[in-house]
Amino acid sequence: MPPDPPVTAILLVNCRDRTGLVAALSTFVFSHGGNILDADQHAERDSGEFFMRLVWDLAGFDLGREAIQSEMAELARRFTLRWELTFSDHVPRVVVFATKASHCLYDLLLCQQIGDLGGTIVAVLSNHEFLADVCQHFDVPFAVIPVERDGKRKAEQEQLARLASLGADVVVLARYMQILSAEFVERWPNRIINIHHSFLPAFAGARPYHQAKERGVKIIGATAHYVTADLDQGPIIEQNVRRVSHRDEVDDLMRAGRDLEREVLTRAVRLHLQRRVLVSGNRTIVFG
Amino acid sequence: MPPDPPVTAILLVNCRDRTGLVAALSTFVFSHGGNILDADQHAERDSGEFFMRLVWDLAGFDLGREAIQSEMAELARRFTLRWELTFSDHVPRVVVFATKASHCLYDLLLCQQIGDLGGTIVAVLSNHEFLADVCQHFDVPFAVIPVERDGKRKAEQEQLARLASLGADVVVLARYMQILSAEFVERWPNRIINIHHSFLPAFAGARPYHQAKERGVKIIGATAHYVTADLDQGPIIEQNVRRVSHRDEVDDLMRAGRDLEREVLTRAVRLHLQRRVLVSGNRTIVFG
Amino acid sequence: MPPDPPVTAILLVNCRDRTGLVAALSTFVFSHGGNILDADQHAERDSGEFFMRLVWDLAGFDLGREAIQSEMAELARRFTLRWELTFSDHVPRVVVFATKASHCLYDLLLCQQIGDLGGTIVAVLSNHEFLADVCQHFDVPFAVIPVERDGKRKAEQEQLARLASLGADVVVLARYMQILSAEFVERWPNRIINIHHSFLPAFAGARPYHQAKERGVKIIGATAHYVTADLDQGPIIEQNVRRVSHRDEVDDLMRAGRDLEREVLTRAVRLHLQRRVLVSGNRTIVFG
Amino acid sequence: MPPDPPVTAILLVNCRDRTGLVAALSTFVFSHGGNILDADQHAERDSGEFFMRLVWDLAGFDLGREAIQSEMAELARRFTLRWELTFSDHVPRVVVFATKASHCLYDLLLCQQIGDLGGTIVAVLSNHEFLADVCQHFDVPFAVIPVERDGKRKAEQEQLARLASLGADVVVLARYMQILSAEFVERWPNRIINIHHSFLPAFAGARPYHQAKERGVKIIGATAHYVTADLDQGPIIEQNVRRVSHRDEVDDLMRAGRDLEREVLTRAVRLHLQRRVLVSGNRTIVFG
Repeated sequence: MPPDPPVTAILLVNCRDRTGLVAALSTFVFSHGGNILDADQHAERDSGEFFMRLVWDLAGFDLGREAIQSEMAELARRFTLRWELTFSDHVPRVVVFATKASHCLYDLLLCQQIGDLGGTIVAVLSNHEFLADVCQHFDVPFAVIPVERDGKRKAEQEQLARLASLGADVVVLARYMQILSAEFVERWPNRIINIHHSFLPAFAGARPYHQAKERGVKIIGATAHYVTADLDQGPIIEQNVRRVSHRDEVDDLMRAGRDLEREVLTRAVRLHLQRRVLVSGNRTIVFG
Repeated sequence: MPPDPPVTAILLVNCRDRTGLVAALSTFVFSHGGNILDADQHAERDSGEFFMRLVWDLAGFDLGREAIQSEMAELARRFTLRWELTFSDHVPRVVVFATKASHCLYDLLLCQQIGDLGGTIVAVLSNHEFLADVCQHFDVPFAVIPVERDGKRKAEQEQLARLASLGADVVVLARYMQILSAEFVERWPNRIINIHHSFLPAFAGARPYHQAKERGVKIIGATAHYVTADLDQGPIIEQNVRRVSHRDEVDDLMRAGRDLEREVLTRAVRLHLQRRVLVSGNRTIVFG
Repeated sequence: MPPDPPVTAILLVNCRDRTGLVAALSTFVFSHGGNILDADQHAERDSGEFFMRLVWDLAGFDLGREAIQSEMAELARRFTLRWELTFSDHVPRVVVFATKASHCLYDLLLCQQIGDLGGTIVAVLSNHEFLADVCQHFDVPFAVIPVERDGKRKAEQEQLARLASLGADVVVLARYMQILSAEFVERWPNRIINIHHSFLPAFAGARPYHQAKERGVKIIGATAHYVTADLDQGPIIEQNVRRVSHRDEVDDLMRAGRDLEREVLTRAVRLHLQRRVLVSGNRTIVFG
Repeated sequence: MPPDPPVTAILLVNCRDRTGLVAALSTFVFSHGGNILDADQHAERDSGEFFMRLVWDLAGFDLGREAIQSEMAELARRFTLRWELTFSDHVPRVVVFATKASHCLYDLLLCQQIGDLGGTIVAVLSNHEFLADVCQHFDVPFAVIPVERDGKRKAEQEQLARLASLGADVVVLARYMQILSAEFVERWPNRIINIHHSFLPAFAGARPYHQAKERGVKIIGATAHYVTADLDQGPIIEQNVRRVSHRDEVDDLMRAGRDLEREVLTRAVRLHLQRRVLVSGNRTIVFG
């Protein structure tokens, strides 16, 4: 078995590209005794934007966490940075919203069980009883918050209260079949992850798999993205596709879609929890 | 080296699913001494449609080609079939339309040179001189038919006349940067193949690669399709995708797009020339 | 929801290519009132082998199942066929062998739960207690058959007895960490499915993921195959690969390997249970 | 069109992981007025190795190229680095070795023609006349160096002399059907790139595509690697695969193989020419 990973600081940075930035940041780490374990940065020629992910070992680092925060704030002012600093021993707390479909939920729970998720699923909230036994099997708390017709506002207030009391860091919509209000979404910017099907070409309207069958598409896909007020248009975290053929009936397409959804959603959640995703405008930079 | 492939008859059939159809067709072949080399049929549970591709060896077959046609016409009446019969020693005649971009044209010419295309490129028609030397290198006739502003009708008449005199079977738009009129397209139904980029999600409007960059898409694609009057919406023959990342600038995305375009277009043309594509409504059945 | 699928006969055939074979088989079906729903045949130019999968609707078919068997036996004598006939309302009985790793077992159980497997997992047999609760969650019988040092023969006799009493049709080795004896394997020809990792290039010896890391491979894979006495060399049913990079540590490679294993094994089992796999010599023909 | 890319310094570094290394290197760049455009580093937890690729803009950098070299040498002594420094306005000079197959050669020449290669093909050397007209079409010098039976030593001396007089930086074996001697290979370490087919599972012996057909493999692949004295076992630069089926005859597999070979080889050459490949032991780190 490999040794335990060290406790690290993980810094995500986005700014206009500036001479001296990498030197300033790496000197900051070095001058306090930190060893950089992973660094990935990229300056975009076209947009002039700069992106960086920097990971350093906290063993032997001579600054405490609050001091790191305040020194970083100072650097951020100097270089006009957007930044986010986390520590690897903070295990992010994940709340999953689900309805009846179990495939995405199982995949997230299996990923956690095997120790690969990078976070802890602290609760599953659903508008139905349906998935209670799945959560019980994995020893994860499950609660029903019903969404009555015309009762979405009330349900969302209860959901928000629950997220607060759970100390949640991120919400994962694992085929949660309700549309969250703009108010809800805006309180959790870039912290709600959704999965939906994608097609080449794209389809508007209902019953997309039937449309895909009628159009004879050769490839179907799934896209995981952060939720914004603009439905299904938030920053894309991860995508994948699968080939299909005329031998696939509509239910075969749906099955392939489910396989893609669970794979792409779990992968997106892991990337987020490992702090590999940086949002800039309406897109993400994913440090692979 | 493998032996020469035998001369075969290739039959494509589409109809409402009917009991006895496969038996009738295969008995027709057998009773005249034909050996079935490849057969692929599929009855769709959802739509009730039946599709078949049947290939048999003409060596020892006791009917001449005209007799085969008339017997098939009789069977078609009995079973209300849409059908298409070709013989493998008829080498389809391909005309390529191009403008300035060479990547798709080169790939088609290389595929032909190596003996893999399944047809003969009898001419390349372009609205510019640009690609003359490429055609000269491959010994393929090249002609310029200029498209003047407001002169599309005249150019199309010249193109149609040229196609007729060349005895063309199929037109391939290899990044031909002109939109063909509905009149032109309707005279060549399911015989004009185009290639265009595709994205997950789809984009409307100009500069799609810039949009793809701004949306941070993780996958880009290309789609080859038959041209219909409804632009870029014709039956899809083939698609493929490639993963991209934030490190890809717009010109990297364009390069990946070119690679996809040439690969997908050449593959679609080969599938068509091998009579593996059957159009039904606005979709294709591709016998792999 | 789509309507229930009809009850069908599924025929797999392999022989030397013979004129009249397809006609004889399809006429057999038609003359007894059967409607062919799916047929896929292929004559290999190089080897001269013929392969077919034929599916017809039993509704309105005027022969009983025993009569079908005896008529097929007659046809088989005439054309010197290897053949296998099954009926879609016989739900194959699957026994899974496992040890401690749960990823493949979960995936098979989830596939069954969702109604996609095409068979019933009638028992999970393991040489450890480890996976009892997984089986309990899915309501699948679980039994431990310990394999003592020098006790493999005894364990295998118990396994064989259990398979017989369960009426098992197929055994799936879902990361079962014991090597089955040649005697065991020969009693279940082409009915034991295994999954193992595959690399480009291949590695001999222990710790393959460590070797893969040291060789800097860019792609890792998994292969599902029928088990023969020649370890890991049986007919291949399904394979898939995933790209990896230098950022993947050995445990990342192992995780990617687990993802591949579960996906490829489940897919192979489904293909087998749908009678889409025909073994010829040391290879399979998979009717897609 | 995007603006011309700036002139940059590109540094590849490999060493045992050391605290302060990134800071020292980035401070070196910053203190002389350089702007870091791209940096990608990775410390391997398992092996303790550190890898970095660092690119900075030379506009405004206050050290000349010789001074950069000598300062880097100093840093390298301090941190015990293996390093390689190049400047983006040095266009690497590529010599292609070929025999008769044209597919890889065409792809490299097309990539150069379109401006994507990242180097200049200064000559094609072949042991046959066969590809002269291809080179003429692309205006690339072509020369025949025949390899007589028992005359390999003499031919290699001529090849080495030609490489020296051409000022070659890298040799690409584009389906060159001769095995280079260990002496030749050792004079060009990590600077000869080869392409060969790869299979899952691997095959020894002759006629690999026939073996692949007989084994019924579902995936075939190609691997581009640096040539070492140990045939086909050098550090892997790039790999890719394609799915195949039982409908693919041996010549279809070979065609798929050719498509893979040209794609993988061109991609590997581009990665090398962009100085994205770092060799460490018998593997590569590819900065994507």
